[in-house]
Amino acid sequence: MPRLILLRHGESVWNKKNLFTGWTDVDLTEDGRKQGWAAGEALAAEDIRPTVCFTSVLTRAIRTLWLTLDAMNRMWLPVTRDWRLNERHYGALQGLNKDEKAKEVGEEQVHIWRRSYDVPPPELHPDDERAPHHEERYKAVPQNSLPLTECLKDTVDRCMPFWHGPIASALKGGETVLISAHGNSLRGIAMELDSVPPDVIPHVEFPYAVPLVYELDEDLKPVESRYVGGSHKTPAQVKAEA
Amino acid sequence: MPRLILLRHGESVWNKKNLFTGWTDVDLTEDGRKQGWAAGEALAAEDIRPTVCFTSVLTRAIRTLWLTLDAMNRMWLPVTRDWRLNERHYGALQGLNKDEKAKEVGEEQVHIWRRSYDVPPPELHPDDERAPHHEERYKAVPQNSLPLTECLKDTVDRCMPFWHGPIASALKGGETVLISAHGNSLRGIAMELDSVPPDVIPHVEFPYAVPLVYELDEDLKPVESRYVGGSHKTPAQVKAEA
Repeated sequence: MPRLILLRHGESVWNKKNLFTGWTDVDLTEDGRKQGWAAGEALAAEDIRPTVCFTSVLTRAIRTLWLTLDAMNRMWLPVTRDWRLNERHYGALQGLNKDEKAKEVGEEQVHIWRRSYDVPPPELHPDDERAPHHEERYKAVPQNSLPLTECLKDTVDRCMPFWHGPIASALKGGETVLISAHGNSLRGIAMELDSVPPDVIPHVEFPYAVPLVYELDEDLKPVESRYVGGSHKTPAQVKAEA
Repeated sequence: MPRLILLRHGESVWNKKNLFTGWTDVDLTEDGRKQGWAAGEALAAEDIRPTVCFTSVLTRAIRTLWLTLDAMNRMWLPVTRDWRLNERHYGALQGLNKDEKAKEVGEEQVHIWRRSYDVPPPELHPDDERAPHHEERYKAVPQNSLPLTECLKDTVDRCMPFWHGPIASALKGGETVLISAHGNSLRGIAMELDSVPPDVIPHVEFPYAVPLVYELDEDLKPVESRYVGGSHKTPAQVKAEA
């Protein structure tokens, strides 16, 4: 039976500072590092052993994965990094303080940007040095695939081909897959697995680096899902209560 | 022009204890970790930027790579781990003290095991729990490819198909390739690149985590090679002096 482990990265420096992060490559805080290590310990304690890993190309997800694998003595596992697992691109909001922006444009507007399904924040200007097509790490990505902003729907749309491709292949091949990623790319995967509707998915929250384990059937439909080392509401529970 | 960076892992706990290590999965010492970080700083200082990485499935090489990439802010690079880059398998000598073994069987015998090209140490018994076919990490490797001991020639023979395959492909595709590996798998690559003969290659020593950079022509023949951040003799220099 295929098994899947979803892991949001540990606390980042900008999470702590309450800034919109998106694709900005911010590292973990000390607490975030501890959370990554604890995730590996929690999985090891229950003898849940990933056999292949996927992550984004952002440092906070990669470091969380490193710490998790290190704590489990499984640094040798194959790891695929792919930009399609990146966090939602937050456009021109990246680097701004969430509360200050709310004072400027109103709580309501910030809430729409943060929690609507299909309203993107303002775009980065293509000449802005923060735009992804200026970064070496995205050089091999078709340039018209790279966003200047994204709503959650955009994130889900670019994440899903990667889910249905390499990740689904690994699961169907009998691997235990660990995905270390971000709140919004993981929302896309949870929508697919648990059939969470677009108006509910913004209410699904992933805690920092607490593994969410799915037992799947052969068609990759969830038989069970639960957090390991935490008592947070799973996407299926949030959906059931909606 | 293709560029290649060879990196031996930093000092390991068993290097320091003077034990035969081979495929035993020993971690780095604190000095070893510093060496890994310093390798990344040295490359960054000369603006030598790898674009793809290869490593073994042994923790000391993977951690050295992690530290090097971390120091360069390049954790997002693609990394392929493969057992064919592993250290030479040291057979039944693994875990034994080099000096004590010399007292038991004579300096001459230990010297032959350590520095001959084609004399393997005694084999591990297949039932020995240290034999690689008992380890999950080698589960996907054809079982008759897994060694119970290796002479240097055996190591070179299993490393070369990986060199001529994925690594050569990446180099010919214009990538700057970083290989984080081990003294004997790197000897195989240096034999190939610098045409070092079998009687000379045992005299080539790779320092802990000092990057050896090759500028290659289109046929992957070396145009130049040099250590970055160190003044050790390159394989080409050892060959020239032999």
